[in-house]
Amino acid sequence: MKKTIKKLCILLTLFTASSVLSANEKVYKLSMATTWGETASPLIDTAKSMAKLAEEMSDGRLIIRVDSANKHKAPLGVFDMVKGGQYDIAHTASYYWKGKDINTLPFTSMPFGLTSPEQYAWFYYGGGMELMKKVYDKHGVLSFPGGSTGVQMGGWFKKEIKTLDDLKGLKMRIPGFAGEIMAKLGVQVTNVPAGELFTSLETNNLDALEWVGPSMDISMGFHKIAPYYYTGWHEPASEMQYIINTKKFEKLPADLQQILVVAMRVSAYDMYIHNYDMNANAWQEMKSEYPNIQVKTFAKDIMDAMKKANQELRTEMSAENPLLKEILDSQDAYMKKVREWTKMSDYLYLKDNL
Amino acid sequence: MKKTIKKLCILLTLFTASSVLSANEKVYKLSMATTWGETASPLIDTAKSMAKLAEEMSDGRLIIRVDSANKHKAPLGVFDMVKGGQYDIAHTASYYWKGKDINTLPFTSMPFGLTSPEQYAWFYYGGGMELMKKVYDKHGVLSFPGGSTGVQMGGWFKKEIKTLDDLKGLKMRIPGFAGEIMAKLGVQVTNVPAGELFTSLETNNLDALEWVGPSMDISMGFHKIAPYYYTGWHEPASEMQYIINTKKFEKLPADLQQILVVAMRVSAYDMYIHNYDMNANAWQEMKSEYPNIQVKTFAKDIMDAMKKANQELRTEMSAENPLLKEILDSQDAYMKKVREWTKMSDYLYLKDNL
Repeated sequence: MKKTIKKLCILLTLFTASSVLSANEKVYKLSMATTWGETASPLIDTAKSMAKLAEEMSDGRLIIRVDSANKHKAPLGVFDMVKGGQYDIAHTASYYWKGKDINTLPFTSMPFGLTSPEQYAWFYYGGGMELMKKVYDKHGVLSFPGGSTGVQMGGWFKKEIKTLDDLKGLKMRIPGFAGEIMAKLGVQVTNVPAGELFTSLETNNLDALEWVGPSMDISMGFHKIAPYYYTGWHEPASEMQYIINTKKFEKLPADLQQILVVAMRVSAYDMYIHNYDMNANAWQEMKSEYPNIQVKTFAKDIMDAMKKANQELRTEMSAENPLLKEILDSQDAYMKKVREWTKMSDYLYLKDNL
Repeated sequence: MKKTIKKLCILLTLFTASSVLSANEKVYKLSMATTWGETASPLIDTAKSMAKLAEEMSDGRLIIRVDSANKHKAPLGVFDMVKGGQYDIAHTASYYWKGKDINTLPFTSMPFGLTSPEQYAWFYYGGGMELMKKVYDKHGVLSFPGGSTGVQMGGWFKKEIKTLDDLKGLKMRIPGFAGEIMAKLGVQVTNVPAGELFTSLETNNLDALEWVGPSMDISMGFHKIAPYYYTGWHEPASEMQYIINTKKFEKLPADLQQILVVAMRVSAYDMYIHNYDMNANAWQEMKSEYPNIQVKTFAKDIMDAMKKANQELRTEMSAENPLLKEILDSQDAYMKKVREWTKMSDYLYLKDNL
């Protein structure tokens, strides 16, 4: 009898301990697929540092496994994989899904649109998050800002572009919405896989190409063979994106939900700042090794033609999609207001301190 | 005997449960003093939202009580209170401590210095955090960025400033290091308590004053009586500061330390973005109610004289303080590199899109 009571006693003790443990220490394991390969800094670092922060803040209760595109082999399949539940989270960019849902386009960056601080202000204080939720709720996923590249450069050109005529027939790699604008200006927009870009440019199968900015362009080597580096117009604030399967998110306890949301938010801001630093370093290195690189801005008539083409395309798309119109109108109204402040603060300060 | 075993058994069960609880659910209560009053948005909101995030992410295990200056009555006493252990944390600004330790000066913002994204890049990727630690370790406190106001405006002037002569004898409220620069240009730098500023300006006991920017200036009403709003030069990136008593921080378990660090970091970035939005709104409101407000920049010879005075003061201070020189040299070297990128990205983009 004594032995039985003792055994019961031990069992009860173990049971009590484990039930307390299970309430507070249950480990939640999530999987994340990135659109980026294993070496794509600073994009992949952002996803990994987010996962690390979540694990540390949760004392190991929230573990996120990060699979790069090298692993899952479907860089542009991550939206469907999160929607379908094969992965819980993705780190990617919203505008990749414009073929599936045109309303996803404006959450990355729009030509001649908001800068990074302006766009973060629009997301968090100007109604952007609510509009993004409206778009993504339909797909059963949640979407959050995932890190800004800052202003993307206009691309590398082998010859200087002086007039609109210089663009006619120019063979250029520039994908997405910006490519549609360039096509309207007579550019022969060409799709070339990343691994063949350098050779295509070297052998004049391409006359120009757009990639990202110094931090990600430097390892591609374009600056060694195309000396004209045009300033940005088409993606002034490219924001990456986290998407999460809504049902999976809702299964997390409230504290882990908040840990995840905060880890994503801080990693996004950090990427903006990290890439700012990487761009400064990469540009210094490029410029010192290849002092003949020239930074150019497109002439006013070229810029005006781009702006006109941009407006025409936006008007066409909006006519068929009331929600897209609502989002673009919201960004336009916000920009009208916030750009006045940007002008009198950052712009006029920089003008006297270059 | 059976009863004794039963009692022991119950005790053991309770003990096991409570020891598991204490490891995972011990509540840590910290106190935070802010330099700001109860209504000083967005500064006080930043401190409060940080505390809220920490509580939510820790599931109530980390509770931070926020006392505004209305409560503790010592806005500029918070550094000593954290150092002495009366409070655990403060939300304040580093340059307030330049009288105690001159090396604390450069961590807020320096005249003609780094912009907000540039300065965050310097803090987190350019060696700034390490230098700040070097300065604050001596005082037994840890220091972290606590939110940027962005570019602060140069102030409200009743008359337009056209020449250097217009500054001679001008009665202006402009505190701190910027005031020392203005004094070198012949400005009669005057200290007036915040509550008397409007009346002093109205009755011409002040000809001009510097406050913050539209978001915080609007409720002061200066725009109703001083129509010239000069653009910023003296605080292009004013960064607030969290300070924490090092011993108190070290007593927290590792997960709560990380929760606290991340909550501070995200709240700092958020303040930058929140204030960006608030400035845009406040400026729109001011400008529509008082359309005669004119935004002005100081003429080149005035700006050059300010830059010269700034350099002279920096050289004097640095000669006596090798660590200050090390910090200023680090910022200068970083700015030389990063401003090249700012110019070709944000500046040239904005130039064509104002």
